[in-house]
Amino acid sequence: MDWKHEISSAAARIKGHAQITPVMTTDALWQRPVELKLEQLQHTGSFKARGAFNTLLSEPVPEAGVVAASGGNHGAAVAYAATRLGHRAQIFVPEMAGPAKIALIERTGAALTVVPGEYANALEAARAYEAETGAMQVHAYDAPGTVAGQGTLMREWEAQGLEADTVLIAVGGGGLIAGSLAWLQGARKVVAVEPETSCALHAALEAGAPVDVQVSGVAANALGARQVGSICHDLSQAHLGASVLVPDDAITEAQTALWQSHRLLVEPAGATALAALRAGAYVPEPGERVAVLVCGGNIAPDPLG
Amino acid sequence: MDWKHEISSAAARIKGHAQITPVMTTDALWQRPVELKLEQLQHTGSFKARGAFNTLLSEPVPEAGVVAASGGNHGAAVAYAATRLGHRAQIFVPEMAGPAKIALIERTGAALTVVPGEYANALEAARAYEAETGAMQVHAYDAPGTVAGQGTLMREWEAQGLEADTVLIAVGGGGLIAGSLAWLQGARKVVAVEPETSCALHAALEAGAPVDVQVSGVAANALGARQVGSICHDLSQAHLGASVLVPDDAITEAQTALWQSHRLLVEPAGATALAALRAGAYVPEPGERVAVLVCGGNIAPDPLG
Repeated sequence: MDWKHEISSAAARIKGHAQITPVMTTDALWQRPVELKLEQLQHTGSFKARGAFNTLLSEPVPEAGVVAASGGNHGAAVAYAATRLGHRAQIFVPEMAGPAKIALIERTGAALTVVPGEYANALEAARAYEAETGAMQVHAYDAPGTVAGQGTLMREWEAQGLEADTVLIAVGGGGLIAGSLAWLQGARKVVAVEPETSCALHAALEAGAPVDVQVSGVAANALGARQVGSICHDLSQAHLGASVLVPDDAITEAQTALWQSHRLLVEPAGATALAALRAGAYVPEPGERVAVLVCGGNIAPDPLG
Repeated sequence: MDWKHEISSAAARIKGHAQITPVMTTDALWQRPVELKLEQLQHTGSFKARGAFNTLLSEPVPEAGVVAASGGNHGAAVAYAATRLGHRAQIFVPEMAGPAKIALIERTGAALTVVPGEYANALEAARAYEAETGAMQVHAYDAPGTVAGQGTLMREWEAQGLEADTVLIAVGGGGLIAGSLAWLQGARKVVAVEPETSCALHAALEAGAPVDVQVSGVAANALGARQVGSICHDLSQAHLGASVLVPDDAITEAQTALWQSHRLLVEPAGATALAALRAGAYVPEPGERVAVLVCGGNIAPDPLG
């Protein structure tokens, strides 16, 4: 696949729909300057809106609209993108998603059904709805349109003057890092950062193929994919610079530092990449310039809730 | 005074000390695009660090260091700038400042004394300390060095590509808007936005001179100056485009919108300028491009406190 072309096409497609998110360079978070991309300021609070818009603008969306089972960032992004583009959207949310995420999806104007129980129950309801109505599902991370959409972030960052030799990126299912690797093609070093408690990419790289992992911990509601996507795994085998793990307390520490130093309030997943620097899970060489992708801000409980 | 020169000198002085804060353009907060300057990401969470660094880098600081009476953004900025520059800093904080602001000042490493009672009691303690030790006070808004420091914000924003015809700025004592007017010299329209409950500049413009006002309301701990600075008043008479007031509920609404639309968590003062647009207190002409300065993020209670 010509990823550079796919990502540039996606960027043209989502222009005016996705937010161009700001960047900054700070001396306050580590012993040397760190470039940040503030992607938590994206619509619905995470990079997921990029992939959702790209998918819905690439393919004909059926009259029945779009369906998703998610109480997370993906569900909110699909709901937002679909309603903004004038499509019907039906989101099935597990009750356990909690009031902050449920309110986030509600605000998009999508039809929302809270399903008693866990994610599996919501997924079952979504599949039944898909079969019944013909509504379209948008894959959260392992589809070329999703990956190309997420890849627009790194393209945008380079256009904004990214200088870093090395970019640290948190990984859940792998859509964001896959898009980044696909855009960069080895031009900069990419470091995958996962919580010790949710590390599907790390496990896949050790096993030589995506494998199931147990997920838990502070960032599990965003990074807790049971299996990394195959697109991510393939691109990681080709281009990934390093794969590191961070303990949950390092994630919480980085989350506190972002708030205390710069009034950036993020969810644990959004602080995971920074945690690798601050906790020493990734140690750059002298002179190696580093950048950290801040990917999500949907904290719970909602501070203004 | 050659303000352009003063502000450019201040910018050179504070370079590497104050944070260059990011900008973004959003369609999600008003019916047309709005440019934002995210100055709440500044060190200690408000623009005040600019004036504090400029003052401390312009004048010889006595051996006894710096003293301030403040439980607010100014006190935190002075404490931060002084300790970063290796000066002693003694901050007297009124008990009523609350735990979030007290913790913010504590984290700077400054010596902190919590004074029982109100602001006046802290001020009395600070004056006694100044008389006893010879420590230096930094004026919060009505001194040329402070105004020139705050003026670096608008200079920076223009260098970042500001396109707006009109910039909305919240006003308390008037240091920030004074610096902005001093830099722009009428080149763009500046709109002063004050809470109905704390409107020292509006009252001064009506009276023809700074006068005492009553202050209260949601933004009073940041915008509640009893009298606007004379530098601000003079520059406003020369260059201000409009002075508008917003009710407290419009401020709270704008604060919620910034969080819900873009995960920007700000204090009420930081949302006050946006409130004028959203509530219609300032109505731009068709085609008039607008920008909003987001000036502070020190919300209480602290969401991670």
